[in-house]
This record gives sequence, C-alpha cells and structure tokens, in this order.
Amino acid sequence: MKERIDQLFPQMVDWRRMFHQYPELSYQEKNTSEKIAQFLRELGLEVRTGIGGYGVTGLLKGKEAGPVVALRADMDALPIQDEKNCSYRSKVPGVMHACGHDAHMAMLMGTAMLLSEQKEKLKGDILFIFQPAEEKPPGGAIAMIQDGVLHGVDVIYGIHLWTPLPLGVVGVRGGEIMAASDAFMIEIIGRGGHGGIPHEAIDAVAIASHVVVNLQTIVSRQVDPLKSGVITVGSIQGGNAFNVIADTCCMLGTVRTFDPVIRKMLVERIEEVVKATCQMYGAQYRFEYTYGYPAVINDEQEAQRVANVASQIVGEQQVWHIPPMMPGEDFAYYLERIPGAFCFVGAGNPEKQIVAPHHHPLFDIDEEAMKVGIELFIRLAMDYLNKGTV
Amino acid sequence: MKERIDQLFPQMVDWRRMFHQYPELSYQEKNTSEKIAQFLRELGLEVRTGIGGYGVTGLLKGKEAGPVVALRADMDALPIQDEKNCSYRSKVPGVMHACGHDAHMAMLMGTAMLLSEQKEKLKGDILFIFQPAEEKPPGGAIAMIQDGVLHGVDVIYGIHLWTPLPLGVVGVRGGEIMAASDAFMIEIIGRGGHGGIPHEAIDAVAIASHVVVNLQTIVSRQVDPLKSGVITVGSIQGGNAFNVIADTCCMLGTVRTFDPVIRKMLVERIEEVVKATCQMYGAQYRFEYTYGYPAVINDEQEAQRVANVASQIVGEQQVWHIPPMMPGEDFAYYLERIPGAFCFVGAGNPEKQIVAPHHHPLFDIDEEAMKVGIELFIRLAMDYLNKGTV
Amino acid sequence: MKERIDQLFPQMVDWRRMFHQYPELSYQEKNTSEKIAQFLRELGLEVRTGIGGYGVTGLLKGKEAGPVVALRADMDALPIQDEKNCSYRSKVPGVMHACGHDAHMAMLMGTAMLLSEQKEKLKGDILFIFQPAEEKPPGGAIAMIQDGVLHGVDVIYGIHLWTPLPLGVVGVRGGEIMAASDAFMIEIIGRGGHGGIPHEAIDAVAIASHVVVNLQTIVSRQVDPLKSGVITVGSIQGGNAFNVIADTCCMLGTVRTFDPVIRKMLVERIEEVVKATCQMYGAQYRFEYTYGYPAVINDEQEAQRVANVASQIVGEQQVWHIPPMMPGEDFAYYLERIPGAFCFVGAGNPEKQIVAPHHHPLFDIDEEAMKVGIELFIRLAMDYLNKGTV
Amino acid sequence: MKERIDQLFPQMVDWRRMFHQYPELSYQEKNTSEKIAQFLRELGLEVRTGIGGYGVTGLLKGKEAGPVVALRADMDALPIQDEKNCSYRSKVPGVMHACGHDAHMAMLMGTAMLLSEQKEKLKGDILFIFQPAEEKPPGGAIAMIQDGVLHGVDVIYGIHLWTPLPLGVVGVRGGEIMAASDAFMIEIIGRGGHGGIPHEAIDAVAIASHVVVNLQTIVSRQVDPLKSGVITVGSIQGGNAFNVIADTCCMLGTVRTFDPVIRKMLVERIEEVVKATCQMYGAQYRFEYTYGYPAVINDEQEAQRVANVASQIVGEQQVWHIPPMMPGEDFAYYLERIPGAFCFVGAGNPEKQIVAPHHHPLFDIDEEAMKVGIELFIRLAMDYLNKGTV
Repeated sequence: MKERIDQLFPQMVDWRRMFHQYPELSYQEKNTSEKIAQFLRELGLEVRTGIGGYGVTGLLKGKEAGPVVALRADMDALPIQDEKNCSYRSKVPGVMHACGHDAHMAMLMGTAMLLSEQKEKLKGDILFIFQPAEEKPPGGAIAMIQDGVLHGVDVIYGIHLWTPLPLGVVGVRGGEIMAASDAFMIEIIGRGGHGGIPHEAIDAVAIASHVVVNLQTIVSRQVDPLKSGVITVGSIQGGNAFNVIADTCCMLGTVRTFDPVIRKMLVERIEEVVKATCQMYGAQYRFEYTYGYPAVINDEQEAQRVANVASQIVGEQQVWHIPPMMPGEDFAYYLERIPGAFCFVGAGNPEKQIVAPHHHPLFDIDEEAMKVGIELFIRLAMDYLNKGTV
Repeated sequence: MKERIDQLFPQMVDWRRMFHQYPELSYQEKNTSEKIAQFLRELGLEVRTGIGGYGVTGLLKGKEAGPVVALRADMDALPIQDEKNCSYRSKVPGVMHACGHDAHMAMLMGTAMLLSEQKEKLKGDILFIFQPAEEKPPGGAIAMIQDGVLHGVDVIYGIHLWTPLPLGVVGVRGGEIMAASDAFMIEIIGRGGHGGIPHEAIDAVAIASHVVVNLQTIVSRQVDPLKSGVITVGSIQGGNAFNVIADTCCMLGTVRTFDPVIRKMLVERIEEVVKATCQMYGAQYRFEYTYGYPAVINDEQEAQRVANVASQIVGEQQVWHIPPMMPGEDFAYYLERIPGAFCFVGAGNPEKQIVAPHHHPLFDIDEEAMKVGIELFIRLAMDYLNKGTV
Repeated sequence: MKERIDQLFPQMVDWRRMFHQYPELSYQEKNTSEKIAQFLRELGLEVRTGIGGYGVTGLLKGKEAGPVVALRADMDALPIQDEKNCSYRSKVPGVMHACGHDAHMAMLMGTAMLLSEQKEKLKGDILFIFQPAEEKPPGGAIAMIQDGVLHGVDVIYGIHLWTPLPLGVVGVRGGEIMAASDAFMIEIIGRGGHGGIPHEAIDAVAIASHVVVNLQTIVSRQVDPLKSGVITVGSIQGGNAFNVIADTCCMLGTVRTFDPVIRKMLVERIEEVVKATCQMYGAQYRFEYTYGYPAVINDEQEAQRVANVASQIVGEQQVWHIPPMMPGEDFAYYLERIPGAFCFVGAGNPEKQIVAPHHHPLFDIDEEAMKVGIELFIRLAMDYLNKGTV
Repeated sequence: MKERIDQLFPQMVDWRRMFHQYPELSYQEKNTSEKIAQFLRELGLEVRTGIGGYGVTGLLKGKEAGPVVALRADMDALPIQDEKNCSYRSKVPGVMHACGHDAHMAMLMGTAMLLSEQKEKLKGDILFIFQPAEEKPPGGAIAMIQDGVLHGVDVIYGIHLWTPLPLGVVGVRGGEIMAASDAFMIEIIGRGGHGGIPHEAIDAVAIASHVVVNLQTIVSRQVDPLKSGVITVGSIQGGNAFNVIADTCCMLGTVRTFDPVIRKMLVERIEEVVKATCQMYGAQYRFEYTYGYPAVINDEQEAQRVANVASQIVGEQQVWHIPPMMPGEDFAYYLERIPGAFCFVGAGNPEKQIVAPHHHPLFDIDEEAMKVGIELFIRLAMDYLNKGTV
C-alpha cells in the first residue's frame, strides 16, 4: 500500500495546491465542491451534492454487505491574506487555506481513489464526506447531519493535519479531545457624567471591572477542579475621555469547556454575575451568548483503534497520547451521534521552516504528512470493516 | 456708577463680540493680547506685555500710595466648532470662546476704563491682569507668576461668568471653591495568548479590572470622609478579539481633590495599587500622572468681602453660598501666593434659551451678566483700597 | 457672674462626685432622677418627672413673658468598670460615668440655681431638661419628645464636656457636628463542604469577601464626594477549619453619615450589594440594619450664638471651629424639631494627666471645665432671652 | 483461594475488632506494632521493628529468587470519640479507628498468613509493611522510607477500604488518584481605629477580603484548566465590634493539587497575592504554609494490573475507573520512588446502615470488604511475581 501511496503522492500534491490557490470562504465553497463531486463521479461512486449547503458525499459500495464507515474532510478557507512566497500561493486576495483543509480534501480524494481500487475486498461501504464551513459556526457538519448524511453510517473518522505536531507523529486520545468554544458579549449600560461627580453617574467602567473580577470566582469556586472551564474576557472597551465617566462598557469573551453540564452552568452563571453586578450598582446590561461547537468527544474504543492503526504506520513511539485541546471543531456533532474518533497528524517540520501556527498568514504544511493521513484513512476503514469492533 | 456702566455696556458688548468672532487658542493669543495692550495704553496705564507668554498687564496708579489690588481676566478660547447661529459667531473654524473668556476680557477692559476715570479717588493702585492659556495646563497663571506679575500685589480677584447660575446671582464661598484636577494613564502590560489557555498568558484585562476595583478601596478607606477625593477611570481599552487574551489594557482617568495632602496621598496610592496588582499577577505597567491645576482656595475674608460687595449689587438673597465645584482653574496659583477670591457671576438665562453648558458648541452667555461683573470688579477694588481689610 | 460661679463650684464638684459614685445605667436612672427632681423642687421650679422614662424637667418662669429656652443634660452611665484610683470612684461594680454625664448634671443643676437667683431679670422662661438613656438607642431624647418635652420650647442648647479638647476651649460649628451612626449585621448563608470540592459547596467566606469589596464601590462611587458616608465592616467571622468550606459567614459593621439622603441611600445600597452578591453565587443572606441616632445638625445662627457667647467667656482664640465628629448623640432629635446648638467644652488636661478618652475605664474630667459649662449655659439663655435672635 | 479466605475470615474479624477496641493515635502505635511484630514472627517471617518510628515489616522469602513486592497497611487511629453502639466499640476515650486502618492491618495479617502457606510457589519475595502515622503529616511513610524500607523493593501496593464505594466494588485509576493537600495561615496586620474614621486606620477586614477575592484569580487564570488547583479559605476571623476597625484578620485555608508544578506555583502566588494586597493598602502580614502529603500518582501499568486482578475477584463491571480524590495519603511517598498503585475497596453498605463517611464518630465498615481486600493483596503479589510486568 505504501508503494501505491507513493505513486499517488504527486497527484495529491497537485490537488492540494490547486485548492490552495483557489480557496473559498465558509459557506461559499461552490467551485471546490463541484470539482470534488466531479472527481468522485469519475471514480464511479454514488455522489450526492448540496448536502447541508455545498456538502458533497461519495459512497463506495464494497463487494460484501457490511457496516458503513464515514471518512470526513472539510473544505473551507479563511479570511486571511496569504503572505507566503511560493508557486502555489493563494490567488484570491484576502482568502487563504490557512488551516490545512486543502490537504484534507486531497488526502480524502486519494483515499477514495485507492479504496475504489480495493473495492472487491471491502466487507461493507465507505462514505466520503466533504464538508463545507468548518471554520464558522453554526458550521457545515450540523447542516449535513440535518440533511441526513449520517443515515446508516456506523462509524466516522476525521483527521486534522497539525503543524504543532512534527511530521511522523499521530496524536489522539479517548474522550475529550477538543473543547466546546463559545462566545459572549456583555455590555454594561450605566449613565455618563462628569469625572468629578461620580454619584450622579453610573460608572460603566467600574461596574464592568467588577464583572470581570466576579467572573473569576465562578471559575475558581463553581467549576469542578477535576474538570475544565475557562472564561476569558478578551476585549474590554469603555469610555473615551479621561475625565468623563463612561456610560457604557463592552466586553467580548469566550468560554471553553468539555463537559456539557459545566458549559450550561457557566452560561447561566455568567449572566447571573452580569445581572447581579449591574443590579448592585444600578446599571442595565445586554448579554449575548453564542454557542460554538460542542466538545469533540472521541469514542474510547475508536480512539484506541486510531492509536493501534497509527502504530502500524508511524511506529508506537510516534503515536502520542495528547492532552485535550482548547480550539473547537464541528466534527463534534458527528461524534454526538455515532461512534468515531478525531485525530491529529503531524505536519510541522522545523527543518523545512514549516512552523507557522494554524490561522497564520505564513501557514503551510509539510505535504509529506498527507502520506500518513491517507494511509491512516485507508487502514482505519479496512480495520473497521474487517474486525467490526476492536 | 450703575449709570456709567449702562452707558458703557454697548461698548463692552462690542468688545466681547469682537473677541468672540476672532478667538485664539491657549498659548496663541497674539492678536487678542495686542488689542488689549493697545487699549490699556490708550487709557494711559503702565502696560507690560509678553508676561508668561502673551500675558498683558496694565497698572493704574491711584492718587495716594496704598495697596495694590489685582483683577484678572483670561483670554484663551477652545478647540470647539462654534455651532451658534448669530451675527457674532466665531469666524475661526474649529475655535470658539465657549467658556466666556471673551466677556471676562470685555468686563476687565470696562473696569479699567471706569476705574481710570476714578483715579483721583484711589488710595492705592490697580493691576489689570489679562492672562493667556487658562484652559490648558500648565496654564498661563503660573507662567505670569514666574515672570513676576504678583510682585507687590496685595490681593487678587477673579470672576467667572457661569451659565449654570442664573443671571443676577453671584456665587462664592470661603475656602475650597474649585477642585484640583489631575489626569493619569495606566497601562497594564501582560502577555497575550489563546483565550482557552489562560495559564500561559498574563491577562491584561483581568488585571486592569482588579486595578479598577482596588482603586475604589483607596477612596472608601483612605480618604478622610470629611474631605473629598475622587478617582475616576474614564476610559478602559484592552484587547481586540473575543477569543484572544489581551496583552495590554490601557486606562485613562482623573483625580479630583481639594486638600493637597489627600492629593499627594492619592497619587502615591494609585501607583501603589497599580504596582501591587501587577506584581500579584505577574504583569508590568506604565503609569503617568499629570498634575493639573491645584484647588482654588479662597481666602475666607476675601470671600466674605465678595459676598458683602455682591449683596450691594444683586441683593443679599441673590448671593449664593455655593458648594465647591469639581472643575479646575489656574487662578489657584495666584491664591497659593496672595490672598484673594474667585467667584461666579450668573450668566444663564432660560427665558432667552441661554442654557448650554460651558465648553458646549452652542455655549453663549446673557451679556447682561457683564454689568454685574464689571460692577463687582470695581466695587471690590474700591472696597479693598478704602478699608484695607474687611 | 464669675464670682458667683466660683462660690458655687465646690458644691457642683460635690454633686458631680456623688453622681460619679452612684452611677446608673441607661433606662435605669431611678435614683439619679429622683435626686434631681428633689433638687429642682427645692429651687421652686415647676417640676415634671417620668417624662420618657426617668426624664425630669424643671421650668423656671421669668418675670416677663417671653420665649422658652431649654438647656439639656443627660444622666446615664456606662457598663464599664471604673479603674480610677480616687476618692470618688464608682461604688457600683461594672458601672461608671465614663462620658461626663455626671458633670453635665452638676452643671445644669448649678445653672438652675444661679438662673433662679436671676429670675427677676428673665424675659422669658428656662426649661431644664435632665434626660435619661443617651448612651443606648433608641435613647431618652426621642422618648421625652414623644412625652411632649419640647412643647412650647423655642430653642435648645446642649453641652458636652470633652477631654480630647483642652480645658479652656469651646468647640462648635454650624451645621453637621455629630454623625448619624447606624449598625448592621450581614450573614451569608452558603453551604459547607470539603475544602477540595468547591463546586459542591457555596463558599460563604468567599462570598462575604466579595460583599466587603463590593461595599467599597458604594462609598467611592455613589456617595457625593463633597459629603460624607462611611461603611465599616468591623467584624467578620466565618468557618472553623482550614480544610472545610464555611457554610456561613457573619459580618458586623457601622454606617456613618450626616446627610439623611445619603444615609437612606446607603441602607438600600448595602442590602442591594448583599442581595446581589449572594444571588450571583447562589447563597442566601440575613441582613439587619439598626438605625442609631440621626446626625446632630446645629442651627447656623445658634451655633454662631454659642461661638459669640463662648468668646466672652474663654476668649475668641479659644473658641474653635471644629470639624464634624463621627460619634453620635441623641441630642439630634431635639434639633430635628427646633433650633438650637450642641457644643463641646474642653475638659482634658494633660498636665493633670487627664487624657483618657471617653468610654475608657480611666476616664475623668478636669472639673474646672464645669465653670466654663455653667457660664456658657447661663449666658446662652440670657443672650437668647434678651435678644431673641442673634 | 476463596475457600481459604472464607475460613480465615472470622479470625480477620477478630483481629480487626481487637485493633478497633484499642486504637492508638499517630506516632503512638506502640502496642499495635508489638502485636503485629509478634504475629509476623510467629509466621516465620524476617521481622524488623522500629522503622521510622513504630513501623514494622515482615519479609516472606519465596522459593525462587525474584522481585520484591511490598504490600502496605497503615496502623494509626484518630482523635475522635467513638459513638457507635456495638461490642467492639473503642475502649479508649477520644480515640477511634475511624478510617479503617484496623481492617487494613487485619487484611495484611491475613495476607501474610495465606501467602506464607504458598511460600513454595513464590518466584520472589513479599514485604509486608505496617506503617504508623498515616493520618498526621509529616507521616510514617517518609520516615520508614528514610529508614530504608523500600531498599530492594520493586513494586508496592496499598488498599484503602472506602465506605463511599459500595461493598463489592474496587475503584482505581492510573495517574493522579489522591491530591496533595496543604494548609496555610494568613494573618493581615493592619491598624485598628474608630469605625467612622477609616483613613486613620488600616482596615484588616477589608484587606483580607481583597486577599480572598484576589486568590480566586490565581485559580481562574494561572492554573492550567486541564489540571487541578484548589485554594479554599476555610476560615476567616477578624475584629470584635461592629464599630471598631479591626487591626488584624486571620485566615486559614487549604490548597489541593495533583501536579507538583502547579503546587509550587500556587504556594508562591498565594504569598504574592497576600504580600501585594497588603502593600497596596499599607498593611503587614504573616504567612505560613504547611506542606501536607504530595499527590498519590499511580503507575499506569500497575493501576491496570489492579484493575485486571480486581476484575477476576469482583467482576469487570464492579471495577470502577474512579476520578481523582481530593483527600491526601502518604502512600504518595512510596510512589514517588518506585512503581505501584493505590486503590479503594468498597466497604459501604446502605442495607446494613453502613454509610458514615470516614473520620465520622459513627464510622464503620462492612467487614465482608476484608475478603475482597485480602484476595486483592494476594493476587496482586502473585500476578506480579509470575509475570514481572503486565
């Protein structure tokens, strides 16, 4: 198999670089999805388009009836200006594949091609899911699910190329692997006034500061210390002049959790803190809470399967039991419904100066990582179909 | 005397409107001061120019030797666009006499003229001080003092026309009448980071919030409750994104006090709060404190003289014992050195829609107030020279 | 008059020392009031007893009809063990005249005697008020008022001997002279728990700490900086063990104000802070607020009369314009209803080691101060009756 | 083996109840250790006494040379009055085996007896460790280690009977299983004063409250949200009167952590918070930090061995992967030096009303749990000696 992958590799690079040069933003992946649909049709798969927006699937039916394994890639790019200096640099101003989704597609296209060649050996079916809009809530996953993409699917796997991990490493863990990431806006509405006459005003800056301080006690006293809950006020803006009491003060922030019970508690408590602090000092408020994706919770057994299969590819020492990560992923929605696992394939390479973090204008991957990714996809599908469960 | 004032009034209005149409900003009162110097020379006074910048004085020597009484007007305008719709609207874009200094000059010019006519009766001398740059620290008063303007002066009086007081009222008090008004800037220098990974960052927003909360306890516990001290954080700005921990957070604020001991204590304590709060959470800081004018502290006896004299002009019921005010005035510097008093002459008139606050684009005065002001200037000077002390 | 006072002085000392040896607690001044009533009857005054408890009054009618001047002394002692070593030490264990009320009575008895001798010259009447229970709210003043003691009274004066002021000094001021002094109790009712499992408990210590911090902002931002408002949490008690989360935390404190609007605002705001802070973190609370006496607000004119009269006794330099004081006095209730003034007569004397503060087990006065007090009482009454108003 | 255990069970009950009736406090386990030493000698083991105080070990040498497995029981009781009503109630007033150490000894004595019977089959040696002073830091474990108890030992196992788990359950986890538990004392040293005159005092209650609030931000922002750190202020005591500003305020608290880096950070940060908060408001402080036991960190493989072996005894469903616990254990010191595992054997039984928590005056165990414990000890030792590693 490695040989066949090596043969295919230049083509995967071409695919990836094509996507890289013509990136499309979330919810606008029209051309990307058309190319993929065309490709999948040429492979002879059962292709569906327009699933949850620009979502595309291709179904590869194996010789024998059996379970259905889904493999997923995401398709959208980011509103970032590509600042790399290379032949395959983005040709779309202000839009860039700065998170590796271009390579995810190339890997899954390669997987579809190679597994199609193995069709006769498959004891079940493979569903290739090309999902739009991973970067921007509400996200493409939930839309595809609502359009029935998981119907009949038994297990799902997702791979993220990851530059913080070095080439040759696969990172995975059972249970919580990526956080639920929500956003909130708090506006304190006080009453402006002369800086020397505080009692005639309602000082939005002072009240906002109390809110920030009070939020800390939610985290320190009301979150189970064995679990995780983060409240960050990332931005605070209030008042324009040194000598005028501000009438409003606006805060933006994020909440990160893994446990949905803690997530729910934090939403309620944050608003309670805002409400009570305002009440205490006579202010009004606006509070908006935007749910991002839930936590990505890997099935323990399927995560173990990823680890086992990855060991065969990169060696046991190169399979890392990684801690949970604070960014979010809408792969979470699939795992809320069916078993499966999400994992990270190392794509950084300091020797080649491939070190920029995801979402950075200089982001790039070591394309060699696609070889690990495609093999992992193929072996995971085969392993599942052959054994059923680990 | 009232008759003579009535005769002069149209000319005072002309003077005032001329200044109103050609306002000059603080430290730029070149033409204004030239006109005044010319006028004082024509009256036959001993004129000095270029005192502390564009400062001008005229000395009127009485027949008999005696004390020297100083009367002061300020000359500068503000960087505000005049939005009034009237014949004497400012002809200088973006510059406006929005605090009544135009009328202060007209009143003091009229005073110089009328007292010159009474020269034979004066048992001492009168010094007319036309001061630049009241609106902008460090201010013209301190510069004129450094140039010796108070040399040989026994007492000084200043009048501010004041639209929050109705026409016909004179407001004064012994002791503290206007606050020391200082400015500060605090920058918290933390370390930015991912919104979900607080322990790798130093959260400038959270630390700034603690600073604001901690400052309250300075006011509540360390300021004598029988005295005054205000700390206002008027503006707070930190962070740009909801999901990124802010690396810096900047606060602007003001301190208002009357007692110099409390003022000094607050400066020290504010920096101590900033320093200790940063130390507590591992941040750095920048702290800048800009002293504004000190508090205006009226001499008790001279404030009483103002009240007595004003009673003769507007009647006892119309002389109001006003509370201290939180804005500042560089008249404070004169009173730090010699006895005297600063007072307010009502210049608002709701019936004529003259209600805009000072520093407002629609600011105007009821010019009738100048009659009260000129009479008060004249009588104060006469009263002092005739009695020495109250 | 000074001569007559000097003659009477030894007897005043006797009276004072008698009271000193047989002190009676607030609301228990039975013997004291009987002695006084007996004394007043022997002077031939119209005596009423049982007014507002053990209150006693004697009315001295002048020759001519005219206004009624009330002079007031308080009669109660304190639950303090007298630790002085002197002949007139308290004979009642644990009870002591540690605030000078013994001398107040002696002074007012002397005043009654001497004014009785001047009866023929009086153009009006004098009411001598001996009031019980000044030390303990609700206090004897309000009870005597409810029993009609002020009926027909035109003006009232009260004198407090005061060891922080030296002998020979009289301290007075117009307006606010003694604070309203209230008490509060806050109990935070959380839920106890294991020190390592905060999320299952409601941490009463942490919540109480937030309450204390939040209260500071009431003072710093909601009290007019030109006025006074103090909130002190004097005592906090919560939890018993280092490793158990406290279920309750109790705080005791006091509020001091002069302005009744601020007083009312603070009561409401304190409860709001407690309520909102508890709500924020899921706790319950108990809040009790006990109103002490209101602020003692001297009539400006009558305070001026005290100053004028006192100048004749001790000299102008020895009449001090004192700042307001934070302790309370139920003389406040009289001044809420009729004009009058409360003042302080210096009774400390470092040369004689008379320096102990009021309410101290070693408290004593320089008895010479009674000479100043009696003369002040007499002259105030005469001055008022002779002039009507100042 | 179960049969042999059943035969031995009545004797284990006798041993346990004997210890229960004659409990000895930490560091005073003289009689207990003598009985155990005598017992071990009678079994023919190599017995050492006086190890780290009253520590006793017995070495059982197997037929073949091989690894050395240590099994540990603790021996001390607690200063609690036994309030049970039963035949084996403590005969020592105020001292009680309220944590199950009596049964731990009985189980390990039984283990020593049964393994002695299997001596011929042992491919290595077994060291039976009877440790004093588990309940009270610095604890007996560290003292025994300093006396060389672990010399030559390859692995160690400890079992705690645990009433929160039901009879028939074994709880274990790899990695962190019990927290490091430390104690601290903070005294704020301010300056007392009149409740109405805050600026002349340094308010220890207000400062202590700020300290408590500031500590929350250490937890919320400086502890890795994927790890654990708890700071609890369990007790706060300051001031005696509602109207006097407190001069001191004392706080007691505990810190719970698993990660030694976080533990060290918290110690430093807590003192920094105390120091900086005091500095901010002009107070002094005392800070004492008492290190308790470090976290108990199970070896992953040995924890897995416990789970595997326990599955054979109680069935796979009854082996619970428990979350880490917040109490501490000085078994931690053994695991800092050699591999091993600590686990919990369910000893609660609601049907028999055996529900009292550990350290409670009514604490008891379901003695049937000793059957699980002894079998687990025996099988762990055998498993290790037979396989070496899992």
